[in-house]
Amino acid sequence: MKALVYHGPGQISLDERPVPELSFATDAIVRMRWSTICGTDLHIVKGDVPTCEPGRVLGHEGVGVVEKVGPSVTAFAPGDKVLISCITACGKCEACRRGMYSHCADGGWILGNRIDGTQAEYVRIPHADTSLYPVPADASEESLVMLSDVLPTGFECGVLNGKVSPGSTVAIIGAGPIGLASLLTARFYSPSSLIVIDPDPHRLEVARRLGATRCVPSDREDPVQAVMLETGYLGADRVIEAVGIPSTFELCQSVVAIGGTIANVGVHGAPAPLHLEKLWDRNLTITTRLVDTVSTPMLLKTVHAGTLDPQVLISHRFALAETLDAYDVFTRAAQTHAIKLLIDCRSDAAQ
Amino acid sequence: MKALVYHGPGQISLDERPVPELSFATDAIVRMRWSTICGTDLHIVKGDVPTCEPGRVLGHEGVGVVEKVGPSVTAFAPGDKVLISCITACGKCEACRRGMYSHCADGGWILGNRIDGTQAEYVRIPHADTSLYPVPADASEESLVMLSDVLPTGFECGVLNGKVSPGSTVAIIGAGPIGLASLLTARFYSPSSLIVIDPDPHRLEVARRLGATRCVPSDREDPVQAVMLETGYLGADRVIEAVGIPSTFELCQSVVAIGGTIANVGVHGAPAPLHLEKLWDRNLTITTRLVDTVSTPMLLKTVHAGTLDPQVLISHRFALAETLDAYDVFTRAAQTHAIKLLIDCRSDAAQ
Amino acid sequence: MKALVYHGPGQISLDERPVPELSFATDAIVRMRWSTICGTDLHIVKGDVPTCEPGRVLGHEGVGVVEKVGPSVTAFAPGDKVLISCITACGKCEACRRGMYSHCADGGWILGNRIDGTQAEYVRIPHADTSLYPVPADASEESLVMLSDVLPTGFECGVLNGKVSPGSTVAIIGAGPIGLASLLTARFYSPSSLIVIDPDPHRLEVARRLGATRCVPSDREDPVQAVMLETGYLGADRVIEAVGIPSTFELCQSVVAIGGTIANVGVHGAPAPLHLEKLWDRNLTITTRLVDTVSTPMLLKTVHAGTLDPQVLISHRFALAETLDAYDVFTRAAQTHAIKLLIDCRSDAAQ
Amino acid sequence: MKALVYHGPGQISLDERPVPELSFATDAIVRMRWSTICGTDLHIVKGDVPTCEPGRVLGHEGVGVVEKVGPSVTAFAPGDKVLISCITACGKCEACRRGMYSHCADGGWILGNRIDGTQAEYVRIPHADTSLYPVPADASEESLVMLSDVLPTGFECGVLNGKVSPGSTVAIIGAGPIGLASLLTARFYSPSSLIVIDPDPHRLEVARRLGATRCVPSDREDPVQAVMLETGYLGADRVIEAVGIPSTFELCQSVVAIGGTIANVGVHGAPAPLHLEKLWDRNLTITTRLVDTVSTPMLLKTVHAGTLDPQVLISHRFALAETLDAYDVFTRAAQTHAIKLLIDCRSDAAQ
Repeated sequence: MKALVYHGPGQISLDERPVPELSFATDAIVRMRWSTICGTDLHIVKGDVPTCEPGRVLGHEGVGVVEKVGPSVTAFAPGDKVLISCITACGKCEACRRGMYSHCADGGWILGNRIDGTQAEYVRIPHADTSLYPVPADASEESLVMLSDVLPTGFECGVLNGKVSPGSTVAIIGAGPIGLASLLTARFYSPSSLIVIDPDPHRLEVARRLGATRCVPSDREDPVQAVMLETGYLGADRVIEAVGIPSTFELCQSVVAIGGTIANVGVHGAPAPLHLEKLWDRNLTITTRLVDTVSTPMLLKTVHAGTLDPQVLISHRFALAETLDAYDVFTRAAQTHAIKLLIDCRSDAAQ
Repeated sequence: MKALVYHGPGQISLDERPVPELSFATDAIVRMRWSTICGTDLHIVKGDVPTCEPGRVLGHEGVGVVEKVGPSVTAFAPGDKVLISCITACGKCEACRRGMYSHCADGGWILGNRIDGTQAEYVRIPHADTSLYPVPADASEESLVMLSDVLPTGFECGVLNGKVSPGSTVAIIGAGPIGLASLLTARFYSPSSLIVIDPDPHRLEVARRLGATRCVPSDREDPVQAVMLETGYLGADRVIEAVGIPSTFELCQSVVAIGGTIANVGVHGAPAPLHLEKLWDRNLTITTRLVDTVSTPMLLKTVHAGTLDPQVLISHRFALAETLDAYDVFTRAAQTHAIKLLIDCRSDAAQ
Repeated sequence: MKALVYHGPGQISLDERPVPELSFATDAIVRMRWSTICGTDLHIVKGDVPTCEPGRVLGHEGVGVVEKVGPSVTAFAPGDKVLISCITACGKCEACRRGMYSHCADGGWILGNRIDGTQAEYVRIPHADTSLYPVPADASEESLVMLSDVLPTGFECGVLNGKVSPGSTVAIIGAGPIGLASLLTARFYSPSSLIVIDPDPHRLEVARRLGATRCVPSDREDPVQAVMLETGYLGADRVIEAVGIPSTFELCQSVVAIGGTIANVGVHGAPAPLHLEKLWDRNLTITTRLVDTVSTPMLLKTVHAGTLDPQVLISHRFALAETLDAYDVFTRAAQTHAIKLLIDCRSDAAQ
Repeated sequence: MKALVYHGPGQISLDERPVPELSFATDAIVRMRWSTICGTDLHIVKGDVPTCEPGRVLGHEGVGVVEKVGPSVTAFAPGDKVLISCITACGKCEACRRGMYSHCADGGWILGNRIDGTQAEYVRIPHADTSLYPVPADASEESLVMLSDVLPTGFECGVLNGKVSPGSTVAIIGAGPIGLASLLTARFYSPSSLIVIDPDPHRLEVARRLGATRCVPSDREDPVQAVMLETGYLGADRVIEAVGIPSTFELCQSVVAIGGTIANVGVHGAPAPLHLEKLWDRNLTITTRLVDTVSTPMLLKTVHAGTLDPQVLISHRFALAETLDAYDVFTRAAQTHAIKLLIDCRSDAAQ
C-alpha cells in the first residue's frame, strides 16, 4: 500500500509499505477513505517529537471502513464505516476510567507517533472498540475527519476547560485550525463576545465568517488594548491559547479578566513566564490538556443535528498520491491559506 | 487609643491615635479584643505593598465588640461580639454577587492596607453588615481570630481551588501558617496522603501533629523523590503552593500528577517559569486566588461542631502594648517557632 | 396614581391609590414605564396565594425610572432607568450570600404579593441596590420587562437546573410563557433536539418559530411515543416541566432518559406521584426552584449581544388604564393567543 | 461445587452445582473466598425481582482468587486476588463511557440476578477486566467484601448524590447496612451534624458508635421535630433515604432544608407522593441511582490509608455450608442484630 513515511527530521516520502496485520485481539484493520494533516505532523517532520522514530507512517486522523477485526473486538465488524479517534483508549486503565483517554496506560496519542498512522491506505487501530466511532449512515464522511482531532481538541482543551458560558467574553489567541475549532465550538455556549487575535488577515477573515464578533490583526493593532476596549476594560472572561509560544501565553495573561480562565491548547516547546507577581491575587484558572476525545459522541450528535458544520474548516483537497504536495501547502499556510486539508486515501485503491 | 502604625519601609511604632469615627452609613466601629499578625503585614513593613501608605494602622484580622454602627447597618448592634473578615465586601457589586468578595468594587483587602486596621484598640469597619460575622455565644473568641484570614485562605485558595477530595494525594509546599491552615482544612476531605514539604524541622513537627502523613525536610531530602515514592511514582493529585517564590512554584510543577491541580496560595513578588514544554499535555489545572472569605460561615460551623480547632495554630500571646515584640517574634519565626501570634487588644483598655 | 388592586378571590379593579413613599433607607420609589402580567398573578386572583391579602397592588415585573431613593441606596439615583427583579434581595442574609435570593430573609417574592407591586404608576422597591438592575442605554425597555421574571425563571429553574448541554435532547412540557422562556434560553446551550409538548396548536406554532425541533400536540399524539421516537427510544436527557399539574409531572417521569434530569418550573397546587418503584435505579436528578434572578446580569449581556431577543414573547399591548382587559385577555390565552402582554404604565402619566 | 440457589419465591437451598466455565473471551472464573448477603437478595427470595429466575445462584458481592481467564482478559491472571464489583461493566458502551456502569448495555446488576452469583465456591465474572479490582497485598480480604456493594452504594447514591460537604447538616433515614454505609462515608466530608433516624435501638447504637452525632428512635420521638431542633429549625441540608418505602420518602420531604438535597438510596416497590405543592419553590434536588461502583478505586485508597474501616459493618460470620442459617439471621435482623454477614466460601474447599 501507499503510505506517507517519516524518515528523520525534514524527510518524508510516499512509500510502498505492506498492508498492516492484526497484532492483538483488540485490533482492527481499517481501510482508509479520508485523512488529513495536523500541526503536530509538522512538529514531527521538524524533528520535535522524539517518540516518533524514522520509518513511521504519519497521521492520526481519518475516516475509513473496517477491513478485519481481532477476536476481542465486539463493537465493530468488517464493512463498518468508522471515525478514527486521534487518541487510542484501552477503556480499562485508571486514566480511561476517569475519562482521561489522553493518558491511557496502553494508548493515548500513539497513532502516527509511536505506531503507524492514517496517512496510508490501511491502518491498524489498537483497542478498536474504544478508539473507533461508528459513522452515522447519513453523515458526510469528509466532515467527520474534522472530528478525529481538531474539533475535540478545540472543544475540550479550549472551550470546556476554558468554561465558555452564555454571556461570557471570549478571546482566542491564534486563528489556525485549532483556534478556529475553538471558535466553532465556543459558539455552542452563546458567549456575548468572541474576539479572535492573529496576525494573518486571511485567517481573521475566516474567523469572521465562522462567527468571531471582533477580529484583531495583532501585527497592526495592540491586542491588549483591543480586548480591553471590547470588554469594557475588564479583560476577557475566558482566554484560549491556540498558538503555543511564550509570547502568546504571556498575551493571555495580559488580557484575562479577574476571575477568568486561560485554557492552553497550543503545543509548547519552551517554558513561558507566569506573572504570579501580578496574577497571584486575580482568582484565575489556567489549564493544560491533551485532548481526550471524550466529547466525540457529543460532537457527532451536534453534527447530526446541524448545530456544527465541520466542513467549513476544509480548505484544500488532495489525493493520497499527492500527500507530499499537501504537506507543502499545509507548511506554507500563510501563503496558501490552508486551514485543514482533506486527503482522499481512496484515490489509489479506486484506480 | 494605642495602634501599631506603619511609617514607611522598616518603620513601625506603637502610637497614640484618635479613636476612629463612623464615616459612612454602612460603617461600624469595633472595639478590638483580639488581633494577630499576618505574613502580608511583614510584606508591608518591608515596603513591598505600595497601596499601604505611611501613617497606616496595620492589621486585618481580629475579634471585637461592636461599639457604634452607622444608620444603614442592620445586622449588628452595639455590644455584639464580632469576627472581622480580612476582606471587606459591599455585597452589591458584580464581584460580590459572584461570591468574589476579594475583588469587591468598594472593598477587598483594604483593612490595614488602604484604610486603618485592627492592631489597635478600635477599628472602623466599612460595609459592616457584609464584612463582620457574629461570634457564637459558646465560641472561643481567641480561636476565631484564626477565621479572619489564615483559615479561609488556606481553605479557599488551597483546598477548595485545589479540589482536595477523599482518597486523593495532597502535597503542601510550605508549612508556615498558611500551609498549616491548608493542612488543617484539607483534612475536611479525607485525602489518603497529606505530604508537607518545608526545610524547618519545627514546622514539620507541627505539621505532623496536625495530621500530615509524611513530612519532607526539603533541605535534607529531595522533595520530588519523596513525593514520587509516597505516591507510587504518580505524583500528587493536588499540590498547594504556600510559600510564594519561583523555586517552590517550580517544585509544584515537578511533583504534580497527570490530571492534577496546583493551587497557588503564596504571595509572589516575581514571575515563575511555567514549564509548558513539559506540562502542555498533562491535563493540569493551576489556580490563583485572593481569599474571598465566602467560606467563613461554613468554617464557623465546623468550629462549632468541633471538626476544626483553630487554637492549634496559636503559638505565642502578646498584649497590644507588646506588639512591636510580637512583630519581632513573628519576623524571626525560624528561631522563635512562631506560627500565629495572638494579640490581646483588651490589655490596655482593661487597665 | 392608578393601580391594579386585588380585593379578594375573583375581584380586581383599577383604583386610585396614593403614590408610595420611602419606608426604609434602602428603598427606592420607581415611576413605572412598562409592566406585564404573570401566571402567578392569575393564581392570586383565583385566591390560591394566601400570602397576598386584599388591598394589594399586583405585579412583580417591569421597567421604570427611579424617582427617589432612601439614604442607604448607593447604586441608583433619581432618573436612572431600571429593570425591576421579581425577587427582592437584601444581599446580606445567608440565602442571598449563597445566591439563593428567592429565599432572602427579608425579601424573596414579595412584590405584588406581600407588598404592593408594579401594575401601577409607581412602586416602592425595598433593598433597591440589590433588587434593581440598570437598563443599558441602547436597550429596548419593552424587551427588558421579560427579564424581570419569565426569562430568568425559564433559564434558572428549567435550563440551568435541567443542565441543558450541547448535543443533549430536551423535552419541554408546556408551551406557555415559561415553557417558551425555557425554550429560548435552552438554545444558549445548543441541544440537538428541543421537543415541545402542549395541546395548544398556536403555542406549538410559536414554539416552532422560536426554535423547537419537534412540536407534539399532546391532545392528538401520544407524547411519550413522540419523545421515544425522537430520541431513539432512550428518552429525553433533560425534561422541563412548565405546567404545574400532577399529570404533566408524571409525563416527565415517562419521557426522561436514564441518567437524565427533570427540572420542575411549574407552580403546583397538589402532590404528584413519584414513581420510585420504576425510577429508584434510573440515576435521575429532579429539581425544584423558585427563580433567584441571579442570572439577570448574564441575561442582560445576552440581550445586549443580540443572542437573546425577549421581544418575541410579547403578544399584546395595553395601556395601564386597560389592565382589566389585559387580565381578561391573559386569562383566556387559549382563545386570545396571549403569551406575554406589555402594559404601558406611562400612558396615564403621559396624558 | 456448593452454591446457594433460588428456586422461586420463598425457596432457597444449598445445592451441588457444576463449577462454571468460561463462556466469553472477556470472562474470568473466580474461586470465591468471602461473600455476603445483600438486602436485594432478600427481595429476590420474596419474589420481588422478576429478572431473577428459579435456578439462579444468588449473591453479587465477594472477594476471591482468579482461577481462569478468557483470552481477552489482560488485567488479571490466575492467582490474582480480586474484589468482585456488584456491577458488571463492559467499559465500552455509552453508559460505561459516561461512568454509569449501572446501566452498562451488556452488564449492570446481573450477578446473582440474571446470571449466577457469588454465594458459591466459584463464579463466572463477565467483562472481568472492568468488573474486578485487584486486592492490595496488605488488605484485609474480609473487609473488602464491603466494597463490592454496600459501601459504594452508600457513598455514591447517598453521599455523592446528596452532596455532603464540610459543615453541612446530614439526616440519614434508616440505619440498616446501607444507611450505615452512608454514615461511614459521609464522614469523608466532615459534616457538622450526622443525624440518624431509625426505630431499632440496636442499629442506632451502632450508628452512634460509627459517628452519628444524633440518633433519633423514630418510634419514640418525632423525627421531624428532632431534625428541626438539631438544625435550628432550618431542616437538614442533605437527606439520605436508606429504607425504600413511601413514608420514609415523605419524611425526607418534611426534614429537608430549603436549597437542600434528598438522595434516594432505598429500593422502592411503590410510588411515593412528592409534595410539589409545598416543594416547588424550595430549590431542592432529589436524586435516584443504582450504584455504578465508579468509586471503588477511590474507596480502596481510603481503606488503604486507614480513613475507612469497612470491618465495622460485619456483625456475623458463617461458613458457606451455613448460608441458609445466614439468610435466616439476616432476615431476622431486628432480633439478631445483623448488619452485614461474612460468608466464608473457602470453608468447604479448605476441608
